[in-house]
Amino acid sequence: MRRHDLVVIGSGSGNMVVSDEFADLDVAIVEATEFGGTCLNRGCIPTKMFAYTAEVADTVRDSATWDVGAQLDGIAWPALRDRVFGRLDPIAAEGRKGREDSDVTVYAGEARFTGPHTLVVDLHDGGSAEIEADRIVIAAGARPVVPPPVQESGLPFHTSDTVMRLDQLPRRLAVLGGGYIAAELAHVFHSAGSEIVMIDMAEELLGPQDESISAAFTEIARERYELHLGHEVTAVEGAPGALRLRLDDDTVIEADTLLVVIGRTPNGDSLDVDAAGLETHDDGRVAVDAAGRTSVDGVWALGDVSSPVQLKHVANREAEVVTHNLLHPDDLREVDHDLVPAAVFTSPQIGTVGRTEAQCRDEGLDYEVAQVDFSDVAYGWAMEDETGFCKVLAERGTGRILGAHILGPEAPTLIQPLAMAMTFDIDAAALSGRPYWIHPALTEVVDNALRQLSATADAKPGCAPRR
Amino acid sequence: MRRHDLVVIGSGSGNMVVSDEFADLDVAIVEATEFGGTCLNRGCIPTKMFAYTAEVADTVRDSATWDVGAQLDGIAWPALRDRVFGRLDPIAAEGRKGREDSDVTVYAGEARFTGPHTLVVDLHDGGSAEIEADRIVIAAGARPVVPPPVQESGLPFHTSDTVMRLDQLPRRLAVLGGGYIAAELAHVFHSAGSEIVMIDMAEELLGPQDESISAAFTEIARERYELHLGHEVTAVEGAPGALRLRLDDDTVIEADTLLVVIGRTPNGDSLDVDAAGLETHDDGRVAVDAAGRTSVDGVWALGDVSSPVQLKHVANREAEVVTHNLLHPDDLREVDHDLVPAAVFTSPQIGTVGRTEAQCRDEGLDYEVAQVDFSDVAYGWAMEDETGFCKVLAERGTGRILGAHILGPEAPTLIQPLAMAMTFDIDAAALSGRPYWIHPALTEVVDNALRQLSATADAKPGCAPRR
Repeated sequence: MRRHDLVVIGSGSGNMVVSDEFADLDVAIVEATEFGGTCLNRGCIPTKMFAYTAEVADTVRDSATWDVGAQLDGIAWPALRDRVFGRLDPIAAEGRKGREDSDVTVYAGEARFTGPHTLVVDLHDGGSAEIEADRIVIAAGARPVVPPPVQESGLPFHTSDTVMRLDQLPRRLAVLGGGYIAAELAHVFHSAGSEIVMIDMAEELLGPQDESISAAFTEIARERYELHLGHEVTAVEGAPGALRLRLDDDTVIEADTLLVVIGRTPNGDSLDVDAAGLETHDDGRVAVDAAGRTSVDGVWALGDVSSPVQLKHVANREAEVVTHNLLHPDDLREVDHDLVPAAVFTSPQIGTVGRTEAQCRDEGLDYEVAQVDFSDVAYGWAMEDETGFCKVLAERGTGRILGAHILGPEAPTLIQPLAMAMTFDIDAAALSGRPYWIHPALTEVVDNALRQLSATADAKPGCAPRR
Repeated sequence: MRRHDLVVIGSGSGNMVVSDEFADLDVAIVEATEFGGTCLNRGCIPTKMFAYTAEVADTVRDSATWDVGAQLDGIAWPALRDRVFGRLDPIAAEGRKGREDSDVTVYAGEARFTGPHTLVVDLHDGGSAEIEADRIVIAAGARPVVPPPVQESGLPFHTSDTVMRLDQLPRRLAVLGGGYIAAELAHVFHSAGSEIVMIDMAEELLGPQDESISAAFTEIARERYELHLGHEVTAVEGAPGALRLRLDDDTVIEADTLLVVIGRTPNGDSLDVDAAGLETHDDGRVAVDAAGRTSVDGVWALGDVSSPVQLKHVANREAEVVTHNLLHPDDLREVDHDLVPAAVFTSPQIGTVGRTEAQCRDEGLDYEVAQVDFSDVAYGWAMEDETGFCKVLAERGTGRILGAHILGPEAPTLIQPLAMAMTFDIDAAALSGRPYWIHPALTEVVDNALRQLSATADAKPGCAPRR
């Protein structure tokens, strides 16, 4: 049994915990796959690199809209894949090497708890290591969920873990799932030239989004993809490269490639957290308090394995807080999961923060809705945008911003002033009226939405929405 | 002498003053050119429509960067021009018609003061009108400055008023000037296929910008354009379509078309404001106080004719304040010209707010500089950006943000959170640490710059700049 001062399970956000301030301690990191975690290797970062390329291809395809003459020859898939992972894989390798070259012990293998402070690591190069530590940080992430009909078919399928590394572009890609990862990857493969057929149990894509966003996005997707919504796959048949997906209404969908993106489940079960006596939620997340403490003294958790919000910027914040708390046990900080803005880098892009309109209704709030189309502002004219909008939900009377939802180019950037306003309790009238908003920047779509609200209009006589 | 309750000179931002709340008054608007002013007809809006098209052409041209195969056939100039003005000209015409159909009197012609509250309008359809009003709002804008050697040559030249309506793309366009309008229009014509030669007296382009921005932009422009900086034109010779510009070092530059964009001068002189007894600044601006009042009782001014900041979002704000003040003489509001963010829609785009580094030095501030490249954040990797950066200037110790300067895609949108922070006195540590910043949105370049500042790093132990 090798004893460490601190063991971190997972080298994604967990790796951020191991700062210079722990240099005097005997620290170990356990990593079951590539160093750097989901975000770097098979999540946020590569998907955005693929998505931007898809956006370029879309721009070329639509170039006549802006009176630009161009022919699109297509996306060079293997070159794109190699550019993306040719940049990211070395970062992962360097991350590992950097730790190995320092005094941090790196265990490459699968960890599982054998007690509150003891672990066995099944090492990739054979054998196993028994380790223990008073302080353990669980940052083991989550993994794609694969439904039984796919699992049981024995036929090949991809998840977000593998699909970006395909050698060949699918001719016809069946995308099982309608959430944000499905939306991002469908966009990438559609723009690269694959036919897309999407299947989801929900009646609308991006269901958790505000109803205006999911309705608009579903309508746009319906023009591009073959959608089968409100249905689930009951069986996968056929042969590799010639799959047949049977739906619950007996529809049969043919596809050469299947991508399963129905959700992600926390990796606590793989770690055998029960053996440590760690409490978990019904959805499998390791239970933590706002400071990142699990139910076992000295054991912390952060990121997708425990967080109510599976987003990298949340995991980063949790890593910062847990790091601080490890170093300052008498001055614990807490993570706030309110007001987490989020983006979907699909086409069009989506940025969102705070309550949806349905949540406002459910909470019985006295709210009003302002919505301005990108085509109502000058930069939207320049973009010849026809589908984008900014929707702001605010409390009637006070102008307190309850939520904001943007669909359109730059949405992940445009949402930030609204996230800031909500965080700093800046109401709609102050947000519109005090800072200047550049004309004719795309930010005018936000300002003009704010100006539609009664509290803002009351505050500024003579002020009409601007062109 | 026709008497009105209110006369507004200029139908750009001036037109915003005439709100429904003046419905009971006898109101007149005088407009010397197209209804809607500079912004709509020959300024911000058409330039952005052209600039976005240029950006599309650039994306196609560079598409191999993102492994997209494409051929660029070029910008269809007449189609582009007709798309832009086919959208904008009807808006101008409708604006005029809307006023004419209401109870507002529209005088199409050149106004000049004959006394403090009296004007003569030389009408475009012949004759003149003598009008008077107790309340007059001067919103007559500004016009391009044309230097004597160009004026005296008798040879044809363009300004921003006319160049966007050219029938044919110039083969070789001489751009006289190195400010933001020059930078925007040079980008448009370069992307459309014109050879660009830029001449400016200053040693660097975009001189008033922060030194990092102007240096980087000048370097980028030098790769694309033929630059003659630190020189002025002493003579224009040759013939229409075969111009020869002689510089002060006897260099001779040949070009078929000349674009003069050296600056804009307020239109107060054309209005004969002296005859009204109105005070003016040395640079020709009509002098106003923070409430928009000129030196003559009942006469107000706003926008480029009087403002220290010739930007449409400032003119909009001034119009709102003057409108309020006309309606509420006992509750005057004031315009604040501090903290006006500004953008240049050139390539790369630029967004800026607050002090430049030179201004921090001149004010003797104890400041520190944080600068993060777009290529240091994940979305910058997706964009394969090689030139963009976000520079933040902050007071050492307190983290008070003194200024921010961004060069790169989405810069006019990215600058807004920094403009907000400065307006609401949110320091760097709070701006970085309290709201979430979406990973991996482009906004990370702002957050990471903030995190470089000592006040921010001190506030957040264990927090390193993020990938």
